[in-house]
Amino acid sequence: MTTNIKKVSNGNEMQTLSNSHIKNGKTISFVPTMGALHKGHLSLVQRACELADITVVSIFVNPTQFAPSEDFEKYTRDIEGDIEKLSEFDVNYIFCPEINGIYPEGFQTFVEVDKLQKPLCGASREGHFKGVATIVLKLLNIVKPSFAIFGEKDYQQLKIIQRMVLDLDLDVKIIGLPIFREPSGLAMSSRNQYLSQNEKKRASFIYKSLTKIKDDFSAGCADVKELVNNAKTFLSEAKINDIEYLEIRDPESLALKSVASKEDIAVIAVKINKTRLIDNIKF
Amino acid sequence: MTTNIKKVSNGNEMQTLSNSHIKNGKTISFVPTMGALHKGHLSLVQRACELADITVVSIFVNPTQFAPSEDFEKYTRDIEGDIEKLSEFDVNYIFCPEINGIYPEGFQTFVEVDKLQKPLCGASREGHFKGVATIVLKLLNIVKPSFAIFGEKDYQQLKIIQRMVLDLDLDVKIIGLPIFREPSGLAMSSRNQYLSQNEKKRASFIYKSLTKIKDDFSAGCADVKELVNNAKTFLSEAKINDIEYLEIRDPESLALKSVASKEDIAVIAVKINKTRLIDNIKF
Repeated sequence: MTTNIKKVSNGNEMQTLSNSHIKNGKTISFVPTMGALHKGHLSLVQRACELADITVVSIFVNPTQFAPSEDFEKYTRDIEGDIEKLSEFDVNYIFCPEINGIYPEGFQTFVEVDKLQKPLCGASREGHFKGVATIVLKLLNIVKPSFAIFGEKDYQQLKIIQRMVLDLDLDVKIIGLPIFREPSGLAMSSRNQYLSQNEKKRASFIYKSLTKIKDDFSAGCADVKELVNNAKTFLSEAKINDIEYLEIRDPESLALKSVASKEDIAVIAVKINKTRLIDNIKF
Repeated sequence: MTTNIKKVSNGNEMQTLSNSHIKNGKTISFVPTMGALHKGHLSLVQRACELADITVVSIFVNPTQFAPSEDFEKYTRDIEGDIEKLSEFDVNYIFCPEINGIYPEGFQTFVEVDKLQKPLCGASREGHFKGVATIVLKLLNIVKPSFAIFGEKDYQQLKIIQRMVLDLDLDVKIIGLPIFREPSGLAMSSRNQYLSQNEKKRASFIYKSLTKIKDDFSAGCADVKELVNNAKTFLSEAKINDIEYLEIRDPESLALKSVASKEDIAVIAVKINKTRLIDNIKF
């Protein structure tokens, strides 16, 4: 397949290219990824292409957002496959930096979004959101987009990035797009590749437990304990017992709720065998 | 005195103005200050005007870089006097944001330069450099300069900002300019206003102690303990005994030295009565 996508691996080169587009009055949209692209990513890319004159997709498996015990080494890398998928879209640049280009000798600067990074995934994945916020800030500074697009599957990440952009006066609009799902309801994730067919079947109950919470709420139950306990029983019946969290929270502050309201969000993290999966649903 | 300087207090307005200059191919230089401008500041402003098409000076007494026990409330504010001084130069904009414009409700994002922020002033001024790095990052994002100019008096601050800019891929050149001194040798500082005539006389021995270190080094003494102890004895004779630090460090990493070399820097912080003063000298 032929493609006109330019692959850039040097940050200064990418920034210079962006500067010249901006000076020519062009707008830039940006989709940061860790590669291993699936249809969820591609829905972000599609939207990016619609939004601006120039579309940049980055592929960088960022070591600082993986805790030492996590799957950094194992994380799927398939740059050629990713480029082939992106060639179906009107993408102008794929930015694939090297690790030592991003983290030069003596690197020591980190950004943290104090409150939003603490609960949920932040509680178990030490340093994860510090790593995420810092790499996103760096990529935004390099690519200089007017629009940056993220999936709502990583809901806490999206809220952290939106807060960071507001707090640091970054001149970019952050756009969150809905979760893309398998026919079974399982949220698309690069980590789904780790699952066997049988595990995938079990994993489909993650989303079903969220729709159950939403349905129970719609049917009149607003007591969070009851909603969550019923969903946990449901998950237990599907042999999903390794639940890291299953909570109902305020969609902006991520504060815990005791009585649910229609703006709230239910969020879940579970492990299927060794694979950690997250999902969420808005009421 | 008439002046063509435009005063801007809203961050979005300042960013929009900067964007339009950049689109028109203009370069921007920037001098961030806390006001109470003296000749040291004005030497930075002078250089800024030479460097770029558009010059922006910010005046913002940043609360997050003052520890609770420090002089935030007492810090000199003289915006009208500052504008009058700036009107002597080819400054285009004075950016004077409000505190709640800079730190909106729910603000919670901070940047830290891990290693460089720890020693020297960072050891005694808790959270100071976290506050400095964060406000400078915000101001750079708002003003979008090609050049930002800082004084070398706040040497550790300058090194922290240079490291932050490198680590976060900020598209700006940080320029440090030499310390501006009173005829007595006392480094110019807004905090010199707190000193009585007699205290100013004593304070002039701060710089004299640094030149003594430099002279002793030039005369062949490279033993840091000896250099520092001789300078402390000299200061003691001038009744300066409240020395927070007097050290010889590597000019880039700020690592402590035991044997001085000609690239090194001597740095000092003392208190004269309640006024904390800093200074430094390159060998």
